[in-house]
Amino acid sequence: MEKAGNQVSGEGNVPVKKTSMEILLGKMRRLPGLVWQTTLKVGREDPRRVIHSLKVGLSLTLVSLLYLLEPLFNGIGQNAIWALMTVVVVLEFTAGATLCKGLNRGLGTLAAGMLAFLIELVADKTGNVCRAIFIAVAVFMIGAATTYTRFFPYIKKNYEYGVVIFLLTFNLITVSSYRVHDVLKLAHQRFYTIAIGCGICLFMSLLVFPNWSGEDLHNSTVLKLEGLARSIEACVKEYFQEPESHGIEQNLPDDPIYKGYKAVLDSKSNDETLALHASWEPRHSLHCYRHPWQQYVKLAAVLRHFGYTAVALHGSLHSEIQAPYSVRALFRDPCIRVARGLSKVLMELADSIRNHRRCSPGLLSDQLHEALQDLNIAIKSQPRLFLGSDHNKATNMLAVAAATANHKSKKDSEVRLSSVKTDTSALLEWKSKKSGDQFKESERKTLRPTLSKIVITSLEFSEALPFAAFASLLVEAVAKLDLVIEEVEELGRLASFKEFKTGDEIIVCCDRTQRKNTGVSQPQYTSDMLG
Amino acid sequence: MEKAGNQVSGEGNVPVKKTSMEILLGKMRRLPGLVWQTTLKVGREDPRRVIHSLKVGLSLTLVSLLYLLEPLFNGIGQNAIWALMTVVVVLEFTAGATLCKGLNRGLGTLAAGMLAFLIELVADKTGNVCRAIFIAVAVFMIGAATTYTRFFPYIKKNYEYGVVIFLLTFNLITVSSYRVHDVLKLAHQRFYTIAIGCGICLFMSLLVFPNWSGEDLHNSTVLKLEGLARSIEACVKEYFQEPESHGIEQNLPDDPIYKGYKAVLDSKSNDETLALHASWEPRHSLHCYRHPWQQYVKLAAVLRHFGYTAVALHGSLHSEIQAPYSVRALFRDPCIRVARGLSKVLMELADSIRNHRRCSPGLLSDQLHEALQDLNIAIKSQPRLFLGSDHNKATNMLAVAAATANHKSKKDSEVRLSSVKTDTSALLEWKSKKSGDQFKESERKTLRPTLSKIVITSLEFSEALPFAAFASLLVEAVAKLDLVIEEVEELGRLASFKEFKTGDEIIVCCDRTQRKNTGVSQPQYTSDMLG
Repeated sequence: MEKAGNQVSGEGNVPVKKTSMEILLGKMRRLPGLVWQTTLKVGREDPRRVIHSLKVGLSLTLVSLLYLLEPLFNGIGQNAIWALMTVVVVLEFTAGATLCKGLNRGLGTLAAGMLAFLIELVADKTGNVCRAIFIAVAVFMIGAATTYTRFFPYIKKNYEYGVVIFLLTFNLITVSSYRVHDVLKLAHQRFYTIAIGCGICLFMSLLVFPNWSGEDLHNSTVLKLEGLARSIEACVKEYFQEPESHGIEQNLPDDPIYKGYKAVLDSKSNDETLALHASWEPRHSLHCYRHPWQQYVKLAAVLRHFGYTAVALHGSLHSEIQAPYSVRALFRDPCIRVARGLSKVLMELADSIRNHRRCSPGLLSDQLHEALQDLNIAIKSQPRLFLGSDHNKATNMLAVAAATANHKSKKDSEVRLSSVKTDTSALLEWKSKKSGDQFKESERKTLRPTLSKIVITSLEFSEALPFAAFASLLVEAVAKLDLVIEEVEELGRLASFKEFKTGDEIIVCCDRTQRKNTGVSQPQYTSDMLG
Repeated sequence: MEKAGNQVSGEGNVPVKKTSMEILLGKMRRLPGLVWQTTLKVGREDPRRVIHSLKVGLSLTLVSLLYLLEPLFNGIGQNAIWALMTVVVVLEFTAGATLCKGLNRGLGTLAAGMLAFLIELVADKTGNVCRAIFIAVAVFMIGAATTYTRFFPYIKKNYEYGVVIFLLTFNLITVSSYRVHDVLKLAHQRFYTIAIGCGICLFMSLLVFPNWSGEDLHNSTVLKLEGLARSIEACVKEYFQEPESHGIEQNLPDDPIYKGYKAVLDSKSNDETLALHASWEPRHSLHCYRHPWQQYVKLAAVLRHFGYTAVALHGSLHSEIQAPYSVRALFRDPCIRVARGLSKVLMELADSIRNHRRCSPGLLSDQLHEALQDLNIAIKSQPRLFLGSDHNKATNMLAVAAATANHKSKKDSEVRLSSVKTDTSALLEWKSKKSGDQFKESERKTLRPTLSKIVITSLEFSEALPFAAFASLLVEAVAKLDLVIEEVEELGRLASFKEFKTGDEIIVCCDRTQRKNTGVSQPQYTSDMLG
């Protein structure tokens, strides 16, 4: 069977090649358009990229003037080329990254120079052959030791670039010193030109349209909170949509629910890099006197864990076993209110971070807890579905439903009664529909091994089980929200966000352009800054 | 209140500084020991790191001989220093990374050289001032355009280093050409020395104790599968542990369950880098004729989603609302068997990938599905807990329990009966215990805002709800396992793993040292390779 497979792919090679040639030609034809589209898209996504590119071009031109203009060249000479190299390598998108690289480069060069000078001192006293051997041994030892330290997690995270520069410079100086005898003078000259290059980089990144890693981290945290809020609300809304109103299933990348939590899940390395770079940045705004960037990383970790619950909730939308709509409809109202409460709290947290103010103290107490209570009541009112804590309640479903319906508003009770009435018929209907769906689904996903799926769907788990999971995940999300609030409050405390005033309006907006919002430079805050 | 907070931290500054001084001194004293321990740990974790460090040292020494030995220096001259730079920058830990960097460097240098030559041709015909202006404009334009392309996702992923080198080389050549007039000769010489450097790098990384990114990716996939298997099994086991046997709560980083899935969650960037580097590597083993590295990335994505379910399962261990032990005990046996089935399938998948063979076809059909059926029966046999599909069953719990007990084995029924008998008392006991626990917990986490937690625990959700969530997540895990199996089978197909033979033993082992297992070079496989 393996051989047969090989032969098939072997025979298939020729037509595949022909079509791949055609595909290549087609691609070539579409390439200019594609490049142009990407160019526009990249610029539109973040206009700072265009500015950064122009900044790099300008810095390079400035630094090449050192070489091109006669008087400057006479002063500095051939070494001007090192300034150019420095600019290419050091100038990064954000100020923090540039500072981090520049400092690493500086420290690495300095340390290497000092060590090379020491080695030079020792080697200088020996003969020529001995000296060559000594240099070779030193290069080997330092090379191996330095490379090994790059595996240390602490070094790797903070100083990897510096270590590479150290190794580079050390080798350059030590090996050159064997033939060039005024190495120190050479190193001196190079140091000046590198300093000029670094100066231009710092000027460009700190003073000309600066981009701050800290600001990026801050904004990405706000966006993540908002994304999660949208995700949770959309997810619960979709869960309680009537089966008929389910449209064509969207692909995962286009799914708004997925889009909401996607940015949170794989954010770890990005967040850590941003926080590292942000920690090098000087205080660049009046928002606070010292920003606790590591707290953002901690908050991001908690958000990731919140995101996993969102994934599980989303998963229960597409799960193989589904609670029938009639069962879901019983709990529609409180669940949607819980989700709305969750979403509102997340939006308020996002808003508080965006505006550098503490979140309101009674954030959780009101609507969310009321909604939770209602969900609890709704679940307890269906003893046939779940084991209520009241052991003596009648188990006749209709009677209970009617009794609970009396306590509820008219609209509620209508939904409840109608769904209870049709419970048995809906169940049968759903079952027959399910087997039909199964056929359709297996047709749709012909490639997929449906063995396990069929087994799972055929199990006829109790219909309340998947809903119980959904409700439990929702409650779990509320519990995790607690941790998120805690970290946001800690962030507010550490970063000395301004106090929440009861008069402050809670503006929940998802508009990206409104990032820099009102209320930043209020008198109360300024006095805190000075005090 | 804000002010008070500030004052406290202001007053606290002096003692904090004093203690931070002491802490610094203490750290300085402990530093040598710490460095030594880290050194040992880094080496013990992966001995290839030591070898790599020695390789780098050796390469640097070899390349510095070009400069140190008289005859070689006379042939190559001052430019030998470029070979040294190349080795420092290009030689990476794995062969794929070295090839990727080397090729990027080569392509970047070549493209820059060609473009610089073109610019030179045009500029050569103009006067000196015009030429300077022309060069400055070219530097600006190319600098800005090149920097902008670095934001293109495709370029960023594959060729970022090449673009940097292109910019560097282009600027060096173009600007130098203003003063040095035999730039082409210079470029020629440099190209040779860089080629020598690259040659040494390739020799060292491909032929001397090579480390393959592809192998790392392969092994990390196996380890991830095994970690998930252990996680799921440990998690379910802990869930059904009797409350008394719960030890002191472990910290998250030490938790074996967390350890198992931790590596999966944040693996995205690492996997993608490894796959990118692996795609540059030549076929380095006889395992298959062309490895589909992107399939490993796809598998990793599916594993991440499986991991999110593991996180949710783990979360239900530490959830605020917990099913009482008496309820859990009813379903202990089938749940543990489902978990064991899941774990076994994952281990078998890991084993099949490790040994480059297809997984056994009837992998899912046997124990796992039987366990699922039993879980289903167990859940349906408790109509008071869940809405069973059989509407006419008696709802008297004891009677049902006794009836089901008759169908079961003796041991099973004992557990079931005793737990059913003590159900009400256990419930009360649990409740009183819970309120005690609550006090203890709030004492332990005094810093944490317990508001929402208290609200959640006070809700008295039906006791079966959390268990239903747990069971549903378990079933969800089985459904997701399907996707994992699908991707592993696709991997086996694309990579032409050898067929599964019924005689093949399934060796489930978690030992890291046994990675390179038996059965790789069997005759059947070799004939497949040749055919």
